Parts: sequence; C-alpha cells; structure tokens
Amino acid sequence: MKTTPVKGMRDCLPDETRVRDYVQGKILETYRQSGFERISTPVMEDMENLDKSDGGDNLNLIFKVLKRGEKLDEALKTGDERQLCDMGLRYDLTVPLSRFYAANIESLPKPFKVIQTDRVFRAERPQKGRYREVVQCDIDILGDESVNAETELIDVTARALMNIGFNGFTVNVNDRTMLRGMLSDMGFPAETLSGVCVSFDKLDKIGADGVKAELTEKGLPESAVDALDTFLKSGDMSLEAVKQKLSDKSAAERLEKIISAVNALSDGSYKAVYAPSLVRGQGYYTGTVFEISCDAFKGAIAGGGRYDGMIGKFIGRDVPAVGFSIGFERICAILTDQKFRVPENKKLALLYTEDTPFEEVLKRASELRREYSVTVLSRQKKLGKQLSSLEERGFAAAAFFGTDEIKTLGEKAD
Amino acid sequence: MKTTPVKGMRDCLPDETRVRDYVQGKILETYRQSGFERISTPVMEDMENLDKSDGGDNLNLIFKVLKRGEKLDEALKTGDERQLCDMGLRYDLTVPLSRFYAANIESLPKPFKVIQTDRVFRAERPQKGRYREVVQCDIDILGDESVNAETELIDVTARALMNIGFNGFTVNVNDRTMLRGMLSDMGFPAETLSGVCVSFDKLDKIGADGVKAELTEKGLPESAVDALDTFLKSGDMSLEAVKQKLSDKSAAERLEKIISAVNALSDGSYKAVYAPSLVRGQGYYTGTVFEISCDAFKGAIAGGGRYDGMIGKFIGRDVPAVGFSIGFERICAILTDQKFRVPENKKLALLYTEDTPFEEVLKRASELRREYSVTVLSRQKKLGKQLSSLEERGFAAAAFFGTDEIKTLGEKAD
Repeated sequence: MKTTPVKGMRDCLPDETRVRDYVQGKILETYRQSGFERISTPVMEDMENLDKSDGGDNLNLIFKVLKRGEKLDEALKTGDERQLCDMGLRYDLTVPLSRFYAANIESLPKPFKVIQTDRVFRAERPQKGRYREVVQCDIDILGDESVNAETELIDVTARALMNIGFNGFTVNVNDRTMLRGMLSDMGFPAETLSGVCVSFDKLDKIGADGVKAELTEKGLPESAVDALDTFLKSGDMSLEAVKQKLSDKSAAERLEKIISAVNALSDGSYKAVYAPSLVRGQGYYTGTVFEISCDAFKGAIAGGGRYDGMIGKFIGRDVPAVGFSIGFERICAILTDQKFRVPENKKLALLYTEDTPFEEVLKRASELRREYSVTVLSRQKKLGKQLSSLEERGFAAAAFFGTDEIKTLGEKAD
Repeated sequence: MKTTPVKGMRDCLPDETRVRDYVQGKILETYRQSGFERISTPVMEDMENLDKSDGGDNLNLIFKVLKRGEKLDEALKTGDERQLCDMGLRYDLTVPLSRFYAANIESLPKPFKVIQTDRVFRAERPQKGRYREVVQCDIDILGDESVNAETELIDVTARALMNIGFNGFTVNVNDRTMLRGMLSDMGFPAETLSGVCVSFDKLDKIGADGVKAELTEKGLPESAVDALDTFLKSGDMSLEAVKQKLSDKSAAERLEKIISAVNALSDGSYKAVYAPSLVRGQGYYTGTVFEISCDAFKGAIAGGGRYDGMIGKFIGRDVPAVGFSIGFERICAILTDQKFRVPENKKLALLYTEDTPFEEVLKRASELRREYSVTVLSRQKKLGKQLSSLEERGFAAAAFFGTDEIKTLGEKAD
C-alpha cells in the first residue's frame, strides 16, 4: 500500500500542526472578541450549485464525487460524463456560506457577522507551496450595504494578523464597478468587461505587455486595448486622478471612505492604499475587492471583496455581502520558515520501569499535570540517550516513577 | 439554486458550532495535557489503499472522487466503472494514520502518542442523528505492544469525557483473539471466524435469535451455531468463566490487567467491565476492542481497539497499534439536547448612529474589548425591540457610542 498522501495534498507532522493550531486559535480569538460567530458547512456541495456559482477559474478545478448505486448505473447508461456526479468538493467558503445564509435567513441576526475556518479543495497543478487541500479563515458580514462592513472586516483581519505577529503590511483596495467604468470609458464593450478584468487581474504576474497580448489574443477592440496599455504604462493611477475621469464617482467615494477609516484605525502599524489593477479571480465579486500584502513575502496573505449578487441566486432577492479570507496556509508557511516556536505548557516525561503497576504511574502523572503537560514513557536501557532525545523534542523535564526527583532538561530550561 | 445541504450532511448554526468548538477544545486540552501530539492528514486517500484497508462494512460506504482530464478520458474508454476513480474520502482516521506513520516512521518518537480530530465520510443511509460527514476525535499509541497502551488510552479518554461533564459511564472491554478462540472451540472453521464475528457484533441490535438466524443463513455448521446460541442464552459470561474454558489464557489475562488498572484509576467515577459480545465493526482490529457506553444514552459514545496488522500492510513489518475514538457527534447531540450552555466571555453590543465616523466606533469597541466580546451594530429606530433581541441572543450589555453609558441586559446578567 502507498505511504504518500494523494497527489497535491500533504500530511502535517506534529510540529507543523502545533503552529497551525496556534495560528488558527489566535485568529479565532480575534474574530470572536470582535463579535463574529462561527458556523460550519459540509465539504461537499450540490454540483449544480457549484457550476452556477461564478467561481471563475476555480470552476475548472472542482473535485467531483461519483454518484452511487442505482443513480450511478443510470448515469453510466447515458454515456454522458457530466451525469456521473451530482456533488463536488467546495472550492471556497463563500458559496457554502451564501447557501447557508439563504437556508437560515429567518433565524440569523441582521447583519450576520460570521466566521468560517475550514478546508477547501482545488485540483490545481501541484507545485511547491501550492496544495489541492487548504484551510481558509474567513469572516463575512451579510446584510450591511454600507462601507462600514468593508472597514470592519479589514480592521478585524488586520488585528488577527497582528495578533499572530505580522506588522507593516499593506491593504490594497479597489472597486470592480469603478474598474469596469474605467474600462468601459476606454472603449471595451459591456459584455467583454468580465473577461477583460480576468486578464487585468494578472497584471502583477504577466506585466502590462502580458495583459495587452492576452487582450489582443481575445480579439478585443485595438483602440480600447491601446487605451488601457497607455494608462498602465504612463497614466496617473492615484485614486484622485481616476475619480476625476469617471462620470459616476460613487464607487471612488466609497473607496476614499474605506481607505481613510482604515488608515485612521491602523495607527501606523499597517496602511491601506488604492490598488487600481486589483481585480481578484472570483467571478462573483460585484464591488469592492481587497488584498493584504507584505513586502517581505511574495503574494497576498489575505483577500476578499463584496459579492452582493450571490445570495440572490438562492432566494431571488439580493442581500449585501462582503467577506475577507486570511491565507492560512501562506501564514503558516511563513511562520514555519521563520522557525516560529509556539508558546506552550512545559512538557515533562514521566519514566517508569516495566515492573511498576501502570495505574500507579498514571496516578502520579495526574498529580504532575497540575504543573506540566505530562507524557508517560517506559524507561529505556540507555537512559542518557533517552533523555537527550526528549530534550531535542522540547521536553523541559523528566521525572522518574517511585522517586520525587524531577530532572531539568536543556541548559536554557527554566 | 438549492439551499439545503447535500443529502445526509448538515450545516451547523452558530449556537451549535459554539458547543462543538467547546467540546473539541476540552477534548484537545485533555489529550495535549496527557502528552499526545496532534497531526493532520488529507480528507482524501488513495482508492487502492482504502479498498485494501479491512474496513468491514465501511468499504461499501466510501465516497469516490472522479478522475480528471486525460485520466478520466482513458477510464471512460475502458467502460469499467471501477476505473473512474483513484481517490476516495476517508471513512475513518485509522487508515490515514497508519499510512502517515508508515511514511514518517523515522522522524516520529517511539512510542508515538498521537491526536487526530477531523472529519470522516460514510455514505450511510440518511436517518435521524446519523450523518454522512462526521467529526471523530481519536487518540492512538503506535509502537507499544503492552496493555499499558490500552490502559492509558482508556484513562485519557475517560478524563476527556469527564472534562466535558460526563460521569458514571461504562468502559466495555473484549479481545477478538479470545472471542475467536472461543468460537473456534465451539466448532466454527477458522476461515469463517471473521464473518461469525461480524454477525456476533450485532447481538445488541438483533438479539441472540437474530445472530443465530444470520449464522444459519450464512450456512455455518449447525452444531457450532447451536453451541454459540446455548452460550448466549444460558452460559456464564463472566471473564473468569470464559477464561477457564480457553486453552490459551493470555488474552484473558491481558483483559484482567486492563480492567483492574482502569477500575483502580477511575476512583468510582466510571467502571470497566468485560463485554463478551463486543466485536466492533471494523475488520482491522486484531486484539482488544473497547467501547464506552452511558446508561442514559443509547449506543456507544467512544470506541476503539488494537490493530497490530495495519501498519505492516504499508511497511512490510507489523507495528503494535491501538486507538480510541470519541463519538464527537454523539457527545454534541447529547449536550445540545440537554440545552448545555457554553461558558463565554460577556458579550456587549456597541450601538452607533449613521452619522458617526465609523473609525471612532471601532476605536471605542477596541477599548471595550478589554472587558467584553464586542459586536458593533447600527442602532435601529425601534431601540427597545433591538435591545430585547440582543438580550435573546445572549448579550450581557449594550453601550451607545458617544456616551459612557453601559446598559445591562437581562435580569440575571451579572
């Protein structure tokens, strides 16, 4: 039998799991202290729901779960591959949340401030640091159309990151309606705007020339592509300048409000800025989009936006909704790289010999647990070797059953 | 789009999630204080591994994940349904742990005392209180062949249950080798023993006559079936009596040792007893099996056993292994039925009016968070109605931005 995890997924060893649990604990603590409430939804969702969810590229990355029994037999008879599955693993937590909210709207508070920290699945091409099963830590506010929702999500997320030890990061903020207005003014036809945004989102990765090439290949009007290219290469990209060019200035004013409130709250520990090229991949965002980046690390460590149209797909009327997701895997990878040590209870090993009544050993362990986290272990013949191995594993002390002796391990043990 | 969760799975609302997080926290705290270390493995496993894992009936309940791209095209061409999937969702945490241990054996301590609390999936027929996605909380000891491993797992699990508030439960203990010895003595052929055990395990559900009927239907020797039936209906089922009948008494002696140690440790808070009909469903158990039951609630609230043969399937040599799993869903359902209230930080709602600068509201919330868990909310026109709704949701107080007033909510608020 194979011992490796399935392709693109991985096992977490004890040291790594300790870091993950610590980070998740800190994030949850901040979220809860801020009045958000946690919910949980299944990892599987209805396949039709997923297909209709405007997930952008993620829709191509869904793991599908095979039908069973008679349903499978019938599906196989049709010879139609698309009939084989009626459920899939969720690719994010926003689609399940929207379904959850639609199902429980009557019993939930308004606005609903909600926490989700859970696994999501995407069949990405496996590569270093990119996995097919990842944990996301999301907060969302459902039922608040004002920019207070964005401001609060950014404030809470920033405090969660600081609680873990991150500082000096940048919150990049944009608004898709504003971006679409700008692109529309440049001459892109209305029905092509979503596609143009998807290409535009890759600006950081493929550069202005890459964006131009991709748009040209998509067959978009040359004059519009040129206008965008000129803007990207030489235009004044300040929020003020972009605002001046637009007929509808409401989105720009919303951005100004968010950015100024966040900067007033951050007290210099981090900053919020306008990011004209920020789009984010998901198709379901309808207004503001935001990301947190850190100079020291490539890529975003958190991302989110407003998705006012999603809940309407379930209940027939739109509910304002905005969410922010911490890139949990990214954060844990950074901390692991930095050899971060989780603050812990002092660990003690209680060593016993084979001839000892084991219930007495466990009773003694119970006493010692008032002060230590206690592991009971059979005493090895080579005691010195055993003690140094315990020291390497981070044990602060060893005790010997039948004696009161507690041996401190490690020079720096306290 | 559909708002219900997929068949047999469910959403957890905030109140329920709070109970679940509390229970999991208490269990993890006990496990960690006892020197166990947490790991994490993917929800998907290689399909061949799952098929070969001796999971008993669970093997028929595996959710399979469809292949993708070229692999799927090739599989479809074969017309063979079994080629469609090469991964499945895990049905328990023991198979992934065994694979994990085999893969990382060199870097793990010996013995390895490990925690897993995570989701597992079984396509059971949906029914009340039985779900297709459940959380299990497991501890295992790998690399200890002595009964100390069983004793410690029972001690730690019992303390975890008491830490949540359970008392007066019974730990039922049996040994499959002993059971097989007994059945063999009754005249069942060696190659039929596993099947006989599976039927025997249903004794609680289908009764002695049900077991007899099932074994007869399976075509087993009439004399053996009669001997078992007589034993079930009139035999002395004490451990001492069964031990006397057996030629190999080692398993009975192991059971005696475990039961007496556990009863010495329990101090009367719970008890351990010999349970001659206990088998447990999984095919992979090789020796001791145990379950915790509570008179007040039907069914087991924890179960486990020794599976010395599983790791050998991966690395070619056996490693002694024993595990104990808390029925997390069962525990949470019982607490929810009892209207259990999670001890929490006092909750305060900070109400603000539309004209307030929102960053000032959030700054004030920060100050109040020294004492309360604070939710910021827009003040409604009907304040009385808003306050009584907050009270219903368990808020202890409300504050009004711009004033120092803190209004206590609820008569019994302290």
